[in-house]
Amino acid sequence: MKPINTSRRTLLTTTGGAIGLASLGAISSLTPAAKALAATQTDPKTALPAYADWKHADSLIVHSANTMETKRTAFGNGIITPLDRLFIRNNISPPSAEIVADPDAWQIQIDGVKDPITLSVADLKTLGVTTVAMVLQCSGNGRGFFPSKPSGTQWTVGAAGCVMFTGVPVKTLLEHVGGMDSTAKYMTGTGGEPIPEGLDPNTIQVERSVPLEGIEDALLAWEINGQPLPLAHGGPLRLVVPGYTGVNNIKYIKRLAFTADQSQANIQQSGYRMAPQGEKGAPTQASVWEMPVKSWITHPGEPDSQLKAGPLQIQGLAMGGTSEVTEVEVSIDGGKNWKKAEFIGPDLGPYAWRQFVLPADLKAGTYTLASRAKNKAGDEQPADRLENNRGYLNNSWTDHALTITVA
Amino acid sequence: MKPINTSRRTLLTTTGGAIGLASLGAISSLTPAAKALAATQTDPKTALPAYADWKHADSLIVHSANTMETKRTAFGNGIITPLDRLFIRNNISPPSAEIVADPDAWQIQIDGVKDPITLSVADLKTLGVTTVAMVLQCSGNGRGFFPSKPSGTQWTVGAAGCVMFTGVPVKTLLEHVGGMDSTAKYMTGTGGEPIPEGLDPNTIQVERSVPLEGIEDALLAWEINGQPLPLAHGGPLRLVVPGYTGVNNIKYIKRLAFTADQSQANIQQSGYRMAPQGEKGAPTQASVWEMPVKSWITHPGEPDSQLKAGPLQIQGLAMGGTSEVTEVEVSIDGGKNWKKAEFIGPDLGPYAWRQFVLPADLKAGTYTLASRAKNKAGDEQPADRLENNRGYLNNSWTDHALTITVA
Repeated sequence: MKPINTSRRTLLTTTGGAIGLASLGAISSLTPAAKALAATQTDPKTALPAYADWKHADSLIVHSANTMETKRTAFGNGIITPLDRLFIRNNISPPSAEIVADPDAWQIQIDGVKDPITLSVADLKTLGVTTVAMVLQCSGNGRGFFPSKPSGTQWTVGAAGCVMFTGVPVKTLLEHVGGMDSTAKYMTGTGGEPIPEGLDPNTIQVERSVPLEGIEDALLAWEINGQPLPLAHGGPLRLVVPGYTGVNNIKYIKRLAFTADQSQANIQQSGYRMAPQGEKGAPTQASVWEMPVKSWITHPGEPDSQLKAGPLQIQGLAMGGTSEVTEVEVSIDGGKNWKKAEFIGPDLGPYAWRQFVLPADLKAGTYTLASRAKNKAGDEQPADRLENNRGYLNNSWTDHALTITVA
Repeated sequence: MKPINTSRRTLLTTTGGAIGLASLGAISSLTPAAKALAATQTDPKTALPAYADWKHADSLIVHSANTMETKRTAFGNGIITPLDRLFIRNNISPPSAEIVADPDAWQIQIDGVKDPITLSVADLKTLGVTTVAMVLQCSGNGRGFFPSKPSGTQWTVGAAGCVMFTGVPVKTLLEHVGGMDSTAKYMTGTGGEPIPEGLDPNTIQVERSVPLEGIEDALLAWEINGQPLPLAHGGPLRLVVPGYTGVNNIKYIKRLAFTADQSQANIQQSGYRMAPQGEKGAPTQASVWEMPVKSWITHPGEPDSQLKAGPLQIQGLAMGGTSEVTEVEVSIDGGKNWKKAEFIGPDLGPYAWRQFVLPADLKAGTYTLASRAKNKAGDEQPADRLENNRGYLNNSWTDHALTITVA
């Protein structure tokens, strides 16, 4: 990604709020002065920004105005993460809240199809409607566990939630527009964030391409958890690609295209790549698309909790990625011994997570609680993280384990 | 129920807020002066009361400080009703908010078992945990459609929601206390509302008995929709009996007993009975327990909406009561012709509701939209309501139909 000069930075920060660049993927390419500015803007004690002031502050760790995660113990057992507890991660500052004042009026251009067309959300609502339960998770969730401390938000477990999106299936839309071009190999979504004048859009435009397999259960969604999609989560309209990491779920989507090539935007070409440690992202490396199988413990406490001896119910969350989660084991001794945990509550489908429980009776001592999940495709949550330069896709069970003391 | 004298009414109204009696089942037995007072207190324009000031006012019809329902078009398609849009119906004013400040400290007495015991919520959490998705619905939901205008809140469709409760199964608790007494025929829960001194508790105590079949999937719940149960919905601890009407799901529960007889409280003996029109409730009549199969249309609008001609997706909600909903048909001509609707989204189990959709293309004209559901047990949603003196259990599809105009 090219360096961004100060005047451009100023434009950005004034366009969308106080913190335009703090969590931009470009942070490592900023000038020293801009880096210093960004550092002050990622103070963990930052208050909730105006566009998210309806969030439940006690349940969140606020990394910056564009990045906040759910605390490990704030997930509860409702399967669906309440919206006021759901993480936020914006690559750049969101557009003006005016765009959600009349959500039905928002327009999206459909390209790379037999009959290209511009449709409003009101139009989309007449075409079809369905609902999907899915894990929404930032590509960098768990980055905070990498000893190499990759640049970016130091998420632990909470840049993830399980939500219900409602919208029109992309497949239904494709029928309406006569099908995609025969040359199409990717579905490319373009975000509606305003691009400051004079700036090459490719430097900051949130535009991502996913392979055609992603279309199968994808939606253009106008609702989340039974309510109109708020600006903070990509309203009025968001592309959702179940099983794919958050960045592929384009907020305030203004264009959906079926393309022969991947987007030329930096966020696609060099961003969100599984680059080896110390190397920059490049198109030759794997793109961050599908989520791997993963689980973590949410109860009885945050790491280093002090607990009273006695019986308790160890609880956690397990997701299969693009394949249904089928089994979870729990260890209380850091992975030496494992016991199968029980799933509780309804199964919301392959893209949702499930809650698991293992009863235990802990005497005084120190315990390292860990969980490891398997999915239907046969993938097992590994002990070791896949090292990469930006700290993506961490599903290591050792990294997600937590140590507690019982007295 | 005995008349309540003015000094007792004063006690009630000062105990729990401004409106102690407005929505009490006893309203028909009040003095004329008290009736007049109650009438002013059920002004639909009443603002949200303090204990519910976090609710989404635009999604609710506020009947009184103790009764508010979700608007027909505010349900959305998330299956789970967001807490800030969920109806509220309290028989009497809730206890002080102090009881949810330290929810784990709340205590419940377990009686009618081999080893009676007092347990805190913290204790309950060590015994077991599970999650259930279920429709929570006021017994009188749909009362507003009775031409006889029975006394009580004039609910239309919105004194209902589908929520996820988390807690310990009552069956697990029973194992812990050595099983229930051999003479037990009912599970009786007692609410924690404060009873003014000098008042016979049976006159206002919320204490309900359900048959033992209700135990099967019952929970003592401390969470709703993934967050600690708020006071407005019965926190810190609520008995939930999936498939049974709201009143049987005892809020702020302070005692759970397995009893040979039904509670002696008026709310059990004469309240919530299927009394013939014009007759008072009596123990000889059927108690309001299980919910029947039911459905209603939520989209494209409120009754008497004016819509633009063209394609649209007719949407609604369908519940099976105590047996899974299996089918829904939709009519656009007031029930002359029916088409099978499609269920969308995940199936959250037999006690949850499901969303259904039927695409239509409406030309100019007037349409009466109706839906009728069937459940696995073979019950069909009837055309006619079951007439009864207090307007309970309305599941008539004609009553729930709505007329719209298309131009």
